[in-house]
Amino acid sequence: MSGSATVNRGVVSPARALDPLFRPRSIAVVGASRDPAKLGHVLLKNVLDYGFAGEVFPVNPSGGEILGRTVYTDLRSLPQAPDLVLLSIPNRGVPGAIRDAAARGAKAAVILASGFGEMGGDGKALQDEIRESGLRLLGPNCMGVYNLPGRLNATYFWELPRREGNLAFVSQSGAYGGLLFGELRRRALGVSVFASIGNQADITHADVMDWLEDDPRTEVVGLFVEEIKDGPRFLETCRRLARTRAVVAFKAGRSGAGKRAAHSHTGSMAGDYEVVRAALGQAGVVVARDTDEFFDALAAYCAYPKGLSVGKGLAIVTISGGPCVTAADAAEEAGIPVPELKPETQARVGALVPEFGALRNPVDMTPQCDPERFPAIVAAVASDPQIGALLAINVGLDRPQFGAAFAQAKSTVPVLAFTLDVPQIQKTFTDAGIPIFPTPERAVRAFALLNRGNGARIAAKSAPAIAGTPLTPFESAKLLVEAGIPMCRQIVAKSIGEARAAALRLGWPVALKALQAGPHKSRRGGVILNVTEKGLPAAWRKLAGAFGSATVVQEMVAGGGHELLLGARRDPVFGPVVMFGGGGVWTELIRDVAVHVGALTAAEARSLIAETKAGDRLAARLPKAIPAVAKALAALARWMKRHPEVLEVDANPVIASAKGLKGVDALVILDDPLTRSDP
Amino acid sequence: MSGSATVNRGVVSPARALDPLFRPRSIAVVGASRDPAKLGHVLLKNVLDYGFAGEVFPVNPSGGEILGRTVYTDLRSLPQAPDLVLLSIPNRGVPGAIRDAAARGAKAAVILASGFGEMGGDGKALQDEIRESGLRLLGPNCMGVYNLPGRLNATYFWELPRREGNLAFVSQSGAYGGLLFGELRRRALGVSVFASIGNQADITHADVMDWLEDDPRTEVVGLFVEEIKDGPRFLETCRRLARTRAVVAFKAGRSGAGKRAAHSHTGSMAGDYEVVRAALGQAGVVVARDTDEFFDALAAYCAYPKGLSVGKGLAIVTISGGPCVTAADAAEEAGIPVPELKPETQARVGALVPEFGALRNPVDMTPQCDPERFPAIVAAVASDPQIGALLAINVGLDRPQFGAAFAQAKSTVPVLAFTLDVPQIQKTFTDAGIPIFPTPERAVRAFALLNRGNGARIAAKSAPAIAGTPLTPFESAKLLVEAGIPMCRQIVAKSIGEARAAALRLGWPVALKALQAGPHKSRRGGVILNVTEKGLPAAWRKLAGAFGSATVVQEMVAGGGHELLLGARRDPVFGPVVMFGGGGVWTELIRDVAVHVGALTAAEARSLIAETKAGDRLAARLPKAIPAVAKALAALARWMKRHPEVLEVDANPVIASAKGLKGVDALVILDDPLTRSDP
Repeated sequence: MSGSATVNRGVVSPARALDPLFRPRSIAVVGASRDPAKLGHVLLKNVLDYGFAGEVFPVNPSGGEILGRTVYTDLRSLPQAPDLVLLSIPNRGVPGAIRDAAARGAKAAVILASGFGEMGGDGKALQDEIRESGLRLLGPNCMGVYNLPGRLNATYFWELPRREGNLAFVSQSGAYGGLLFGELRRRALGVSVFASIGNQADITHADVMDWLEDDPRTEVVGLFVEEIKDGPRFLETCRRLARTRAVVAFKAGRSGAGKRAAHSHTGSMAGDYEVVRAALGQAGVVVARDTDEFFDALAAYCAYPKGLSVGKGLAIVTISGGPCVTAADAAEEAGIPVPELKPETQARVGALVPEFGALRNPVDMTPQCDPERFPAIVAAVASDPQIGALLAINVGLDRPQFGAAFAQAKSTVPVLAFTLDVPQIQKTFTDAGIPIFPTPERAVRAFALLNRGNGARIAAKSAPAIAGTPLTPFESAKLLVEAGIPMCRQIVAKSIGEARAAALRLGWPVALKALQAGPHKSRRGGVILNVTEKGLPAAWRKLAGAFGSATVVQEMVAGGGHELLLGARRDPVFGPVVMFGGGGVWTELIRDVAVHVGALTAAEARSLIAETKAGDRLAARLPKAIPAVAKALAALARWMKRHPEVLEVDANPVIASAKGLKGVDALVILDDPLTRSDP
Repeated sequence: MSGSATVNRGVVSPARALDPLFRPRSIAVVGASRDPAKLGHVLLKNVLDYGFAGEVFPVNPSGGEILGRTVYTDLRSLPQAPDLVLLSIPNRGVPGAIRDAAARGAKAAVILASGFGEMGGDGKALQDEIRESGLRLLGPNCMGVYNLPGRLNATYFWELPRREGNLAFVSQSGAYGGLLFGELRRRALGVSVFASIGNQADITHADVMDWLEDDPRTEVVGLFVEEIKDGPRFLETCRRLARTRAVVAFKAGRSGAGKRAAHSHTGSMAGDYEVVRAALGQAGVVVARDTDEFFDALAAYCAYPKGLSVGKGLAIVTISGGPCVTAADAAEEAGIPVPELKPETQARVGALVPEFGALRNPVDMTPQCDPERFPAIVAAVASDPQIGALLAINVGLDRPQFGAAFAQAKSTVPVLAFTLDVPQIQKTFTDAGIPIFPTPERAVRAFALLNRGNGARIAAKSAPAIAGTPLTPFESAKLLVEAGIPMCRQIVAKSIGEARAAALRLGWPVALKALQAGPHKSRRGGVILNVTEKGLPAAWRKLAGAFGSATVVQEMVAGGGHELLLGARRDPVFGPVVMFGGGGVWTELIRDVAVHVGALTAAEARSLIAETKAGDRLAARLPKAIPAVAKALAALARWMKRHPEVLEVDANPVIASAKGLKGVDALVILDDPLTRSDP
C-alpha cells in the first residue's frame, strides 16, 4: 500500500519511515523537569496527559521521580530502546544526547531547542553535527509532533484540540501551529496530525507528506512553508499527494524583511515567491495569499475535501439583509455567478415569504418570515437548476429552523455559511459539517478556493535580479538562436565601412547598436533605429562618439507586430523556469508575465501563453503566431535544461507578425562561479 | 458652535436638528408588547434597561401595564408631547401613527418596520406618505438609534456594548450594526453613537454626520453605505466632518447581484462603485474594501483618531517567530518600510537577547529571553531613528512583561499588535489603547490605512454602459473640439470625388471611416488607415460596399505618439466625473484609468494624470505634453458642467506627441429623456 516510488533512506518505504516519529511504541523525554514552569515538565506532562499508550521514560541527570514516573539519569541506562526521543535541553547538549540515543537504539528524535542553523556560525556547526546520527530527526527549533488518533502529544502545546478530524498540518513555524489550533477551536474543527518541522535538519515537508499519503484519516493537508528543501522532490511529493488529498499551502518569507526574519528564526532561504506559487499551482496545490485565506481554505476543504466543481451558481439566502449585499459584491469580484432565480423558483419562494422579502437571489426571507417555512424555502432555492451551492447568512436571529433548513439541504447541495451571534444555528451547522466563515466576503472567497481547479497558475509579478555575468546583446542573440528563438540578423562592425557593408547585406534601413552599452541602452542613446544609407555617417559619429566604435548592425523589423517577452531563469529551489509575457513597454508598465516551472509540452506552453494579456491579444489578432511561440518556449526550456551554466535569458522584445517571430534584443546571464554563494 | 453652513430644514441648525432623536427628553413606544418574545417588548425593555432618564410612554390599544408602566391606548392620549416616538408596528399602521405623533407634538420618530420603499409598489406609496409629516424620521426598515452617553437604547438590539468610546457608526444595514457590536465586544472597544438609517425616507448619512460634527465624544465615524442620497451634499458633509474626525466608509452594493440585494432590502440605488470610492477619497474619507478591513480600520482609528504620518519605518518585535515573517511580507506588499535597524540599535538589542535571537528587524527576542529585559529591548528598538511605529507580535507566550514593555513604549511611539491566546498581554494592551488585530497581515494593513493621506484616489476599473443616444464619431468629434479637446480634422464625403477633394485639403495619406459604423468599427472593418491617392478607389469600394457611401475622411496622425483616453461621464449620484488613462489597446487590456469627481484645477488634473501608468509614461517620455492634457481635462470638466444633456464623453485614442495633442476617435452620448428612469 505504500508509495514506493521515492525510497530515499535505507530500505524502509517512505510511508513507513516516520512511523517511529508518529506512531512510536515507547518515548524517552530528555530534559524532563520537576518544575511545572519549565518546558521540560510541560512536555512530559503532555505525553502522559494525552493518553499515550506505550512506555514513557523521563530522563534527567538528577534522577528521582517526576509525575509518578521513575527518572533515568541518562539515555544509555534506559531499560529498553525507545522508538522516539524528545529532547527538551539547550542546544549545546543536543549532539551528545543524539549520540546517546543512537547508541541506545532509538529510531527517531524530536529536537525542540533553538540555537542551530537559524543563528549561523556555531549553531550551523551543531546542526551539521546532529545530522550524522542516522536517527530520523524532527527539528531543531520546533514545537514537536501531535498525532491525535495515536494519542501522541509530543509538543510544548498544552491545550491541543482533542477532536479528531481530517486535517494534517505541517508547519515550519511553531507559532503558526498555535494560530491553527486557535482557529480550529473557534471553528470547532478537528485535526489528525500536526508536525512542526522547524529547521528541517533531516525531516522535511516532503518526508511528512510521504508519511501522510498512507494516513487514512487525513483528507486535507495544510503546509506552512518558509524554506523548501529539495524543490523537485517537494513538488513531486505535492503532486502525488494532491491526487488523493486536498493540499493547501501558505508561503511566508517573500519580502526582503520577511526573508531576513525567516532566516533568523528558522534558518530558511526563501525561494522566489512567484515561482513558488507557480510551482505549487502546477502541482495541484491550493496556494493561500494570507493568513486568513489560509485558514479559511483549510476550513472549507475540511468540509469538502474533494473541492467543489464550478459550473453552477451560488444562491445567497438570509434573514438579515446587509451582509448578503456584501457577499454578492464579493462573488462578482471572485467571478462566481449569483444568478437570478428562475421565475418558477421565485414563485415558490414568493408564496412563503412576506411581501417585502427578496426573491431573486440574494434571497431575503426577512426576520418576519414564519420560521416553519424556512426548510421549504431553502429547498426551493436549492432545487433551482442554476444553483450549485448555498451560502447561508444570519446575523443575530437565532431561529433553530434556520439551522435545520440548511442542514437538511446539505444532503442535496453544498452549503457554506456566514453567521454571527447565533449559537444554536452555529451548533447545528457545525454538526452538519457546514463551514462557517467570519465575514460574508471570506465565505465567498472560500467557495472560490474550493472551486479552484488543479494546476491554477499565477502570473509572475517580478523577476528579481540575479547575480552573474551578462553577455553582450550580440553574444546573447547568438545563444538564443541556438536555444530556438529566431532573432534579427546582426553583424558586428568596427568601422563605418564595415557598417555600410553589413547594411548592404541586411538591407537598408538598419538599426545601429553599441556593442557594449548594456541594458536600457535605448534610453541612454546606445541604439539608433531606421538608419538609412544617407543617415549612416551622422549615426555612426554619434554612436561611436558615445560608446566607441564596436558596433552591431542589425536588420530592422517592420512595425505593427506584437511585442513579446520570452525568457527563462534558473530558480535556486526549482531549477529552470520559463517565462512568457508582453514585451517592450508592456514588460515595463504592466509586468504581464506568466511563469512555468520545468519542462513544458506544447499544450502547457499554449496554456502559459493564454494566462497573459499578451496571449489574449495574440489570440484575438494573430492566432497563427501562437504555435510558433509555444514551440520556442518549449525549445527554450529544453535548452535551459541542457545548459546549467545559464542563469537567465531574456529575449525582449520578440516581434510576432504575419511573417513569424523575430527577436530584436536579448540578454543572457551566465553563472559566475566566483560570485556564487553556497547556501 | 454649530456648523451653520447647510441649514436644510426650518430654522434649527443642522447640528441641533436631530437632538430630539439622539437626546430626547421623553419617548413613546408604539407597539409595546407584553410578550417578551415580541420585538415591541424588547424595544420598550431596552429603553428602560439602559437607564434612559426622561419619561417613557408605552402605547398599545389594549392598555393596561407593561414592565410596570402605564400603557396608553393611543398617541393622542399621552399626558405630554413626546420628543421621540418609536414605532414597532407593521407597515400599514405607520402612516396613521405618524399623523397621530405629529398631532400630539412629537418632534422625531423611529420607524423600525419593513415593507416600505424597499419592496416598491404599495410600500413605496407608504414611504412617500410618511415623508409629509413634518417630523424628523429615522428609517423605515431600520434597527433604531443608540446614544450611549445619553443612555438611550432605542433599538431592537438587547446586548449593546456599555463601554463608552469615541466611535459613531451610521449604518444603512441593521445587520452591519450587529457585526459592529460583535467586533467591538471582541476588541473591547467602546461606542458613542449608533444610528441605523434604513431606507433614509428622511434622515440620511449626511444628516447624522451634521449632528455628529458637534458631538464632542465622537472622534471616529464609521459609515456603512448602500445608497447615497444627494451626492453633492453627502460629499460636502464628509469633507467637512473629515477635517475634525476620522471618517471610514464601506460601500456595499457594487455588483449586479449586490445591487439586486440592496434594492430589495433597503430600496437603495447603488452608485457606481469606483466613482463612489474616488469621491469619498477626494473628500478625505478612508474607504475600506471589505468587512474585515472596515472593522480593522475603525479599530485602528479608534486608537489613533488623527491617523499616523508616513515617513518612518515599522519595527516588528516578537518572541514567537513565524508571524513576523508574514507581517514583514505584508509590509512590503503595502509599501511600508521595515528598515534594518542601525548597528548601534542592533548592538543594544544584541546585548539583551539570546544568541539565536534576531536583531535586524523583525526583532525576535525568542521565548528564552529573560522577560525582565523586554522593556529595555523594546525601548532600544523604539529609539532607533528610522522607526516610527512598533508592531508587537505574540502567539501564546503570555509574559506580563511583554505587555508592559509595549504599554510603556507607547508613550513615545505608536504601537499596534497581533496577539493570540495571551489574555494578560491582551488586557494590558487594551488598557493602554494598543489596537490588536486578528492576523499579522491585518495589523500591517491597518497601519497602512492609518498612514493613508486624505484624498487618496482610486483608479477606476470599469466604466459601465450608460443608456442614452450615441452620436456619430463625426458629430462627437465636433462637440469635443468645442469641449476643448483638439481633434483630427475630418470631412464628410458622400462620393469618391468628395473623398478625393477632402483628402487633398487634409493631405495624403488619409484615414477613411464609415460614418455610421458605431463603436469597435476598426475591428469590424469600418476604418481603413493610410489611404493613398492611388489606393483610394479600392478603399472606397470596400468601405462603401460594407457600410454605405456616407464616409468620413480624416487626417492621419503620425505614429510613435502616446495613446491616451480623455473622457467624462455623468454619475447619477455625484454629477460630472472626468477620466484620464491609457488609450487605444491600453484601455482595452489594462483599464488604466483614474477618475475625478466634479470640477478640477490644473493641479488636480496633473495629480489625476499622475495616478495612471499612462501618466507615468508621459512623465518619463513626453513631459511637455502634461500641461496640455491637464488643460484639456479641466476644460472638459467645465464643459460637462455647462452641458447637462451630455451623459458620456470618450475621446480615445488621443495621441500625444511632440506636436501636441490630437484626438483620433470620439464618442459622445446624450441623455435620452425617453429612456431615463426616474429613481
